[in-house]
Amino acid sequence: MQCQILSIGDELLIGDTVNTNASWMARELTEIGVEVNRIYTIKDDLAGIKEIVNEALSSADVVFTTGGLGPTHDDMTKQAIAELLDSELVVHEPTLDFIKKIFKERNIPFSKSNYHQAEVIEGCEVLFNEQGTAPAMWFDHEGALLVVLPGVPYEMKHLMNHHILPRLKKKIGNKTYRASHYMLTAGIGESTLSDEIIGDLNPFLNGNDISLAYLPSPEGTRIRIRGQASTEQKLKDQMETLIGHIKKQADGFIVGEGKQIRLAEKVGESLQEVGLKIAVAESCTGGSVANSLTDIPGSSNYFKGGIIAYENEVKVNQLKVNANDLQQQGAVSKAVALQMAKGVAQQLNAHIGISTTGIAGPEGGTDKKPVGTVWIGFWSEDQHFAIRAQFTNDRLINKQRTTATALEMVRRILLDISEMPYGLKKQLA
Amino acid sequence: MQCQILSIGDELLIGDTVNTNASWMARELTEIGVEVNRIYTIKDDLAGIKEIVNEALSSADVVFTTGGLGPTHDDMTKQAIAELLDSELVVHEPTLDFIKKIFKERNIPFSKSNYHQAEVIEGCEVLFNEQGTAPAMWFDHEGALLVVLPGVPYEMKHLMNHHILPRLKKKIGNKTYRASHYMLTAGIGESTLSDEIIGDLNPFLNGNDISLAYLPSPEGTRIRIRGQASTEQKLKDQMETLIGHIKKQADGFIVGEGKQIRLAEKVGESLQEVGLKIAVAESCTGGSVANSLTDIPGSSNYFKGGIIAYENEVKVNQLKVNANDLQQQGAVSKAVALQMAKGVAQQLNAHIGISTTGIAGPEGGTDKKPVGTVWIGFWSEDQHFAIRAQFTNDRLINKQRTTATALEMVRRILLDISEMPYGLKKQLA
Repeated sequence: MQCQILSIGDELLIGDTVNTNASWMARELTEIGVEVNRIYTIKDDLAGIKEIVNEALSSADVVFTTGGLGPTHDDMTKQAIAELLDSELVVHEPTLDFIKKIFKERNIPFSKSNYHQAEVIEGCEVLFNEQGTAPAMWFDHEGALLVVLPGVPYEMKHLMNHHILPRLKKKIGNKTYRASHYMLTAGIGESTLSDEIIGDLNPFLNGNDISLAYLPSPEGTRIRIRGQASTEQKLKDQMETLIGHIKKQADGFIVGEGKQIRLAEKVGESLQEVGLKIAVAESCTGGSVANSLTDIPGSSNYFKGGIIAYENEVKVNQLKVNANDLQQQGAVSKAVALQMAKGVAQQLNAHIGISTTGIAGPEGGTDKKPVGTVWIGFWSEDQHFAIRAQFTNDRLINKQRTTATALEMVRRILLDISEMPYGLKKQLA
Repeated sequence: MQCQILSIGDELLIGDTVNTNASWMARELTEIGVEVNRIYTIKDDLAGIKEIVNEALSSADVVFTTGGLGPTHDDMTKQAIAELLDSELVVHEPTLDFIKKIFKERNIPFSKSNYHQAEVIEGCEVLFNEQGTAPAMWFDHEGALLVVLPGVPYEMKHLMNHHILPRLKKKIGNKTYRASHYMLTAGIGESTLSDEIIGDLNPFLNGNDISLAYLPSPEGTRIRIRGQASTEQKLKDQMETLIGHIKKQADGFIVGEGKQIRLAEKVGESLQEVGLKIAVAESCTGGSVANSLTDIPGSSNYFKGGIIAYENEVKVNQLKVNANDLQQQGAVSKAVALQMAKGVAQQLNAHIGISTTGIAGPEGGTDKKPVGTVWIGFWSEDQHFAIRAQFTNDRLINKQRTTATALEMVRRILLDISEMPYGLKKQLA
């Protein structure tokens, strides 16, 4: 089944809005087996909408439009499609009642122009939008399907998830079974992962039935495996064979499985599993590590807190770093990283303390310690070490990568994986 | 001058990548007066590329393509356009030398297939890409311009900024003068800002020559004013009249001016101006406030650090919050917010201490203190108060909004603006 997406809206063509609707739809449609072969982005323009919808209906099995269903004079979509299909606009009573009710609840006066919001094109099937005021419309047009959706992202997603995707899945039928599987890896570069760790996959990739993609992300490289087969069993076997191979090859680098999995989430799970609590002492990451950990609901179960020792005085006073060591070796040194990690664990009464100290940039680098130099410390009753990394000269990327490396370090320690991220060596006092 | 953009790449149609290139280009082009009237997103497909480029060249003054210039067998763009223009691919020697040099530096063996990366279409003007391996190509084709760009964002932006946009600006000539002006507001809702504070702008908006848009962002509402006129003076007058009016109406709510201005940046500037240092005590924001402040280069000039007192024990031990008050009134209370702010300022030896304590969610709410309840505290030698806000039930949005509100609170204090964000009242001990 082939489809085309038409994103309608002036704001998309002046760069005010990024077209996230189209890419979300493209991903969801691809997952259920509908191939997107073209995406058009055009203005709220009567002639343009008619032209493209007409063209698309003759080139694809399904055509989607998003946008242009609001009440302002800029919103052209309904009128354009009504004209194209030689039809009329009629008021949809349930939607009208719903809109009136919303306006009443919010104390907004209902005026005549608001009737337009409840209009639909005669001949369509109305798909009621519980999340907003614009209903979706579904048309069977001479063998092709036309689906008209609002442009507001959560409304469009609600309608797609509740109405459209299930219907299309049914239409595609059970002739083909599909599945996707996602894994997050961390602490290894993408090319090293694909070329050296995972290696040649040709024995597993059976033509178009199964595919593997490496998707970069700030935390690490995500691996996505997609498969399809004519029976559920065949699909299961194919997927499990390749997934099993990846897990065997990349064991230790795989943080977790699932589309939305996050490094901080898995670190949290591991801490909870062993009943340990962690505290963080941050300098160059300035709160980024704590922020990542606390983005995860339930983190209060294992996260004590942290000390952001941005000024050296704070390293000495709050973390009990030795003032002489600080002066002689500098804040960005093994000794200071080690002491920060131990200091925060002791001060905050945590089982594990980690630290970051480095030069985020863009200023502050020297020949010996250029921008991007970072020490990451670890303290527990069992181990006390620091690793030294070299990142880039971009401040925000340095914060991000140091944070991911520190979290990955903790994850590996908790799982007894001896190799540190990027093969960096544990350096003792 | 009208243009169309053709984004080429399979990954765009399976939702792996969001089309940020097209929206970036659309914004930059619109700013210099080139109107984007259509964006196509298509696969790496020979026939499709030829069809669309051909169609676009007959419908616009300038056609841009991005993507498909790599060395793999998926990359079709050069071949498609060569066929369409009835031309050949030839090796561009300077690019070949450059690629060989990069490969040598990175110790990557140079193979025959890498020659393809240095090929360009005969008849084009080559625009050398110092940021990557694929050069851009500029064609004058029967009165229309065709610009072929790589898909890698920083390479495309480099080529656009250094070669393409300046050339197009020159072509447009000085017949129309254009300008844009951006302002960030904070601590006020968008509708209140537009309806009550700024109000009716019809006297200022002169048809299409000047426009104003409200653009929501996590930190606040950005106002964008765009103008055009036939002379520089007329443009200047029009823009200054409207900008002056906005500044007068929205004085106090305007954080700063400029497209990329950030709240943390302005707070930092204000702190530096008065030579004061700040420390943060965070509970529910878990590091987000410190992280925002330290994203700004030079923040070590005014940011002492922070204490992330995620567990109550840390509030008592590190911030010297009174254990009885904590027990009786709870962590999410005025008393605790006040004490956290004072405690961190004293412990970290800062002029200003701010605090956040609340229920980020999704769990933890009660009838009296539902999810989204937040106290934000402020301490300095001059003032000591807390404000109470009520946000949503989304954890990440709560963290974000609490952070923005805390930063906006500081900004207003430093500028002697007595009203607090969202009209929240300062509550004393």
